[in-house]
Amino acid sequence: MVKSARALKVLFMIIQSPYLLFLGDAPDSLSAKVAQGIKDWRPETCVGQFRQPGCQADLGLKDLSLQDAVKAGAKTLVVGVANRGGVISDSWLSVFVEALEAGLDIASGLHNLLSDIPMLVEVSNTRNRKLIDVRIPQVQYPIANGHPRSGKRCLAVGTDCSVGKMYTALAMDKAMHRAGRASTFRPTGQTGILITGDGVPLDAVVADFMAGAVEYLTPDNDDAHWDMIEGQGSLFHPSYSGVTLALIHGGAPDAIVLCHEPTRTHMRGLPHYNLPMLTELREVALPLAKVVNPACKVVAVSVNTAALDDEAAIRYCAEVESEMGLPTVDPYRHGATRLIAELD
Amino acid sequence: MVKSARALKVLFMIIQSPYLLFLGDAPDSLSAKVAQGIKDWRPETCVGQFRQPGCQADLGLKDLSLQDAVKAGAKTLVVGVANRGGVISDSWLSVFVEALEAGLDIASGLHNLLSDIPMLVEVSNTRNRKLIDVRIPQVQYPIANGHPRSGKRCLAVGTDCSVGKMYTALAMDKAMHRAGRASTFRPTGQTGILITGDGVPLDAVVADFMAGAVEYLTPDNDDAHWDMIEGQGSLFHPSYSGVTLALIHGGAPDAIVLCHEPTRTHMRGLPHYNLPMLTELREVALPLAKVVNPACKVVAVSVNTAALDDEAAIRYCAEVESEMGLPTVDPYRHGATRLIAELD
Repeated sequence: MVKSARALKVLFMIIQSPYLLFLGDAPDSLSAKVAQGIKDWRPETCVGQFRQPGCQADLGLKDLSLQDAVKAGAKTLVVGVANRGGVISDSWLSVFVEALEAGLDIASGLHNLLSDIPMLVEVSNTRNRKLIDVRIPQVQYPIANGHPRSGKRCLAVGTDCSVGKMYTALAMDKAMHRAGRASTFRPTGQTGILITGDGVPLDAVVADFMAGAVEYLTPDNDDAHWDMIEGQGSLFHPSYSGVTLALIHGGAPDAIVLCHEPTRTHMRGLPHYNLPMLTELREVALPLAKVVNPACKVVAVSVNTAALDDEAAIRYCAEVESEMGLPTVDPYRHGATRLIAELD
Repeated sequence: MVKSARALKVLFMIIQSPYLLFLGDAPDSLSAKVAQGIKDWRPETCVGQFRQPGCQADLGLKDLSLQDAVKAGAKTLVVGVANRGGVISDSWLSVFVEALEAGLDIASGLHNLLSDIPMLVEVSNTRNRKLIDVRIPQVQYPIANGHPRSGKRCLAVGTDCSVGKMYTALAMDKAMHRAGRASTFRPTGQTGILITGDGVPLDAVVADFMAGAVEYLTPDNDDAHWDMIEGQGSLFHPSYSGVTLALIHGGAPDAIVLCHEPTRTHMRGLPHYNLPMLTELREVALPLAKVVNPACKVVAVSVNTAALDDEAAIRYCAEVESEMGLPTVDPYRHGATRLIAELD
């Protein structure tokens, strides 16, 4: 297989922080999930929030005008809200124009693109500001070469999509920092990229370059440094399994943490597919990971227990721990200390 | 994971046959491999060949001028030659311009694109002809839904890249037709697409749509009809394994034929990676295939014995047959009858 010349669009771009988080006219807290994620995981990058009349979300940050945000050092207005359909509301546009005029870049992970709106393109050009659509790869990724790299890598591998792989990697990264250990969260999806300001939007990368993009994301590093790589999809999810395998082979993990959501009744978006057992997932994932990194181990299980009460959450984790013979926690609920203890 | 709006470029396009095969100033036969493949597998689509002074390749077809080819019914000039670097020679350009003016479309699988050459774009627009770069996906592929489809599918799965997966699928398709059975070769790479005139350039499809592109390529069909799907990459090739898994899950094969080249000393392009054993490949591929099609079986082995003499080829196949307990042949050398006998 070979590279597609047309697939290679180039422009390296990192989202400048700190951020002003745009909540717009969010009808509820859930629709401001992206902003909440940024505030939860990178509060130090947020100078404030911008809310329009009727906004029902509140991150507890200072409400700032565009001008005050710029005075406070903000570099980028980050669209932290999604309305129904993930599109850009007309009512947001005038704010975006003013933001560019005030000297802010704008970053968005929405389906429809900032760079497809002529008015924004025109103003951003005139004002020399950037429109950053994190769904579009900004880098000419190489084809993977499979070479061993220095430093260590941990990958979150899920029984399904949306079972907590990003939160697991973020929680482990945070716990590593608290423990004084070297670690970097490596985002592979839109929300993760907005949280950290860079990363690889892997689902939008051309097939031949997927694994190479992950190698690019997780380069040589100090021997004791760990990359905490956000997983995507699932080896058992027919729509996205290829992306997952590219992550396993490009990421070359030394450690895999299996991620699971215990109340899911079928694969996300596929009512006719059951979730695999955690034991099955381990049996399939580990031999594949060892192709690239023979030292790879499955070290722990991370359970998203959001749908369980406290007692049920503890009980479920204990059951899995006994069945799998691996430390099992909900890192968001119980902390990630036991997970990172497995990384040596 | 979700779709990337920017990734969706649309225009349905099939390469019109019959073809005039362009050999240019090919320095040797090997550089005309694509043309040779088309002539070997679809002789009925070739009205002739076009050779420039100094051309060292000869397919044994009639040498035709552009005008005579058009008179003989040719619809498309197919670039069947690759020079060093896979680029379009300056010396070819004047021929391409004349071909468009004579009323031919041009199709190419080369790295650099016809549609990136302003002169060709201008003439093709003026003359209302098409420039078809088969490395660029022409269809807005869906995200895979994993639904069972009617009809049957056979997928070639290799220990490595370039071990004979396309030839295996083509040979099986030909044997099916000879046996009066319903079958369609489904190309997933540039050469296969040029051979048949349509298909999916899977290595150039955006990650989220890979499996959906394969579902699109292998739709519902008559119960007794078999799709012979060209494989890509290898589950054990770190650069491209994600593409291979998307083929397994999108193709939902009822039957898998394992493909192998016995003299390969390492994975293609990766001197630091050994090839997997055929037994290993079966152990890894089958459980993954059963996620989507629980009835899937590994039915046979196809060996590319081009580097072995007659006796060694027979002996090697016999050894593999005994080890794997599966019919094992080189379908190009020994015929594919024993392979298709396994498809019921």
